[in-house]
Amino acid sequence: MEFDLIERVHSHCAHRRGDVALGIGDDAALLDVPAGQQLVACTDTLVAGVHFPDHTAPEDIGWKSLAVNLSDLAAMGAQSAWALLALTLPDADAAFVERFAKGFADLAQAHGVALVGGDTTQGPLSVTVTALGWVPRDLALTRTGARAGDAVFVTGTLGNAAGALRLFLPPQAGTAAIHGKELHGAEGGGGLLRTRLNRPEPRITAGLALRGIASACIDVSDGLLADLGHVCAASKVAAEINADALPISSALAASFDAKTCRELALSGGDDYELCFTAPSARETEVVEKLARTGCGATRIGRVVAGSGVRALDANANEIEIGHVGWEHFS
Amino acid sequence: MEFDLIERVHSHCAHRRGDVALGIGDDAALLDVPAGQQLVACTDTLVAGVHFPDHTAPEDIGWKSLAVNLSDLAAMGAQSAWALLALTLPDADAAFVERFAKGFADLAQAHGVALVGGDTTQGPLSVTVTALGWVPRDLALTRTGARAGDAVFVTGTLGNAAGALRLFLPPQAGTAAIHGKELHGAEGGGGLLRTRLNRPEPRITAGLALRGIASACIDVSDGLLADLGHVCAASKVAAEINADALPISSALAASFDAKTCRELALSGGDDYELCFTAPSARETEVVEKLARTGCGATRIGRVVAGSGVRALDANANEIEIGHVGWEHFS
Repeated sequence: MEFDLIERVHSHCAHRRGDVALGIGDDAALLDVPAGQQLVACTDTLVAGVHFPDHTAPEDIGWKSLAVNLSDLAAMGAQSAWALLALTLPDADAAFVERFAKGFADLAQAHGVALVGGDTTQGPLSVTVTALGWVPRDLALTRTGARAGDAVFVTGTLGNAAGALRLFLPPQAGTAAIHGKELHGAEGGGGLLRTRLNRPEPRITAGLALRGIASACIDVSDGLLADLGHVCAASKVAAEINADALPISSALAASFDAKTCRELALSGGDDYELCFTAPSARETEVVEKLARTGCGATRIGRVVAGSGVRALDANANEIEIGHVGWEHFS
Repeated sequence: MEFDLIERVHSHCAHRRGDVALGIGDDAALLDVPAGQQLVACTDTLVAGVHFPDHTAPEDIGWKSLAVNLSDLAAMGAQSAWALLALTLPDADAAFVERFAKGFADLAQAHGVALVGGDTTQGPLSVTVTALGWVPRDLALTRTGARAGDAVFVTGTLGNAAGALRLFLPPQAGTAAIHGKELHGAEGGGGLLRTRLNRPEPRITAGLALRGIASACIDVSDGLLADLGHVCAASKVAAEINADALPISSALAASFDAKTCRELALSGGDDYELCFTAPSARETEVVEKLARTGCGATRIGRVVAGSGVRALDANANEIEIGHVGWEHFS
């Protein structure tokens, strides 16, 4: 039965790669990593009611389960190549699997990712994806290279996913366990925000463009302050964010007041934009290069000596944010 | 928090590998696959109450979650190298994590496997491991190479894990959802069987020894008849098993009558022995080589033209087995 379900996902992934010597159907996959490249590997789990609301569309769960992993590859500057899918389902729901497969395959095809292995088990709904890719030796983007004097950038816009949760879910439910049907029942101005929550775009192309330019990089999954904090800790530096420079989508601006938008942009998780540092002198190059990748990049602050991340208003006063990021078991 | 839990598992894995350019602590791991080798990748999930009884010791869950994946690498003839661990826990239970980590690390160290990535999430207990290794190009053992005239072999002994379930769990619970405290409360003659259920030994060394010898290979996770059936289907051949030749441990023989032992050996899952085919003329070479790996190998039948797997008694009459293997959602 294991192969039946995975095969159905696989059948939607029309993309075939010459570097898959043996794909689904044996005990393991056989894969050719190109010469001179380092393998890049990561894994992430989505649990129903924790990482997505219980009534999220199966297509969106499929998409997002792959997206959060491709986003980790993007943050390393890696080229995505292959994925393995471990799907746990309460029962053999063929319609669910078909729809899940469609969403997963849509994103896989967009990035030329081949599904090369998997496992289907019975249990409470959860999805673990392992994403594999590669990067030329010494060109990987890590968290450790930020230096005082570097500029801090972010791709795209921030706070959209958190905005969607706030619009469509009861306020207290956005932090720990998330439930509710509203997310799919309601239409209107929040459509764009909801798309960013359910169908995040992994910034693979941006990550590739940043090879040799960014000094450090991370994807924004827990929230800007939390994730930039990881970069600062790993690089042994501090960062100052100019809150007025934060890129806000017009959809977010149309749904919340300016203060809330800023808060969502600083602490809302699940955006899967890249936050990275680069020498200040290369700002123009960064902005031009990332404009060509489609998502764009905005300079939002600077790296300084010290530790921690501070968000400053126009008067250089620190902004206090209650909820920083999204921590499980916290 | 994600890194805290994974770090605790990692801290137990003292084994460090030179081919891990960047391990846990960034968005993804950077790994060096040796030149001339193909990457081998697989993933498997264990769900509480489905793949192990609810009250299984955390150490055993840790061990087994890695073992079932290393077993898939073994079945490909691969050298194991790295693992990623996605752990879903109902709550941040430090004692559970410590004990889980210990069991996982015990097996990882035994096989020189480095934990290079992971994710911790909140939800019903389940574990997904991705195992990575390599094999020289064209030396992988697959399911497709069995030819009529080949002999069928199995490593070790069969039916032990199923015997443990039958001894320590209510009979009807052994098939679908498995529960019960008995598995750990009871001591006695079943100790060896229980060890085989909770701490299966992935046959990595045997798989390596079979490169260039075995024509097809699979690990026995669903039961001999079911798994050999996968080989036959993939190779477009049939197989005949000589039931009297099935290797039975003395612990199993001491716990059940001969007929039950045979049944458990033919259809019981979770043994994680290797079942493989090889030219009959190489039987002596196979047996000698695998004796040196510690687990040994027994010739149990032959590959013939046709389709399906038949188990024959001493009079060449087919043995009917009710329950073939262990299928989820079946």
